[in-house]
Amino acid sequence: MSVSNEVTVTEQPNVNAATCPSRSVLEHITSRWGVLVLAALLEDGRRFSELRRIIGGVSEKMLAQTLQTLERDGFVHREAHPVIPPRVDYSLTEVGEQAARLVSGLARWSEAHVPDVLASREEYDNRT
Amino acid sequence: MSVSNEVTVTEQPNVNAATCPSRSVLEHITSRWGVLVLAALLEDGRRFSELRRIIGGVSEKMLAQTLQTLERDGFVHREAHPVIPPRVDYSLTEVGEQAARLVSGLARWSEAHVPDVLASREEYDNRT
Repeated sequence: MSVSNEVTVTEQPNVNAATCPSRSVLEHITSRWGVLVLAALLEDGRRFSELRRIIGGVSEKMLAQTLQTLERDGFVHREAHPVIPPRVDYSLTEVGEQAARLVSGLARWSEAHVPDVLASREEYDNRT
Repeated sequence: MSVSNEVTVTEQPNVNAATCPSRSVLEHITSRWGVLVLAALLEDGRRFSELRRIIGGVSEKMLAQTLQTLERDGFVHREAHPVIPPRVDYSLTEVGEQAARLVSGLARWSEAHVPDVLASREEYDNRT
């Protein structure tokens, strides 16, 4: 028996198990705003106000909440600069960058397949 | 000027634009149950009852709704067999398989990074 980590996961993580913590990891990186924040941060580190401008439709509250969740999970690094007016920069951690590359791939794929999906929806709606 | 498709997308799809249809594509494949259904179907085609058993915590209603959304988007093929009792099989389309490979990668990544994330959450909670 070996104890190598402070956090011990006794069973193999499995997203299909309702109570497995891997499910919350997956949900945080695939949440509506989580995906877009990670993808935006992948380009480079950004200020809060820049993220708000880039990500259409996100409220200040939802952006702050999403960034906090991602920071708590260890994906985003938050740096508050002691200047006037206060400035806060966000950047990806090493592990956050891995997640961001995966979700950014999904975002690009979704953009590329819009014509296919719209055609399929039209066909489906005419059929049903 | 050329018209090559019945569905014409005038602007370049961009998930950061609040009204771009690419955002709904992304949201359907990254929805809580969408991810898990696509990943489960990647293994092979499955019956409704099998999917319900594999994906912990999904209700009959949510599974049916998720499958219908994915079918409408052209990611899932539904085949009803005229037998008694009725049997319905689901499988991925070619484009659905592409999406499934991407989200399945995210699911596996989430499982692999559970220890990192749990350690980060503990550290964050002690700090704040």
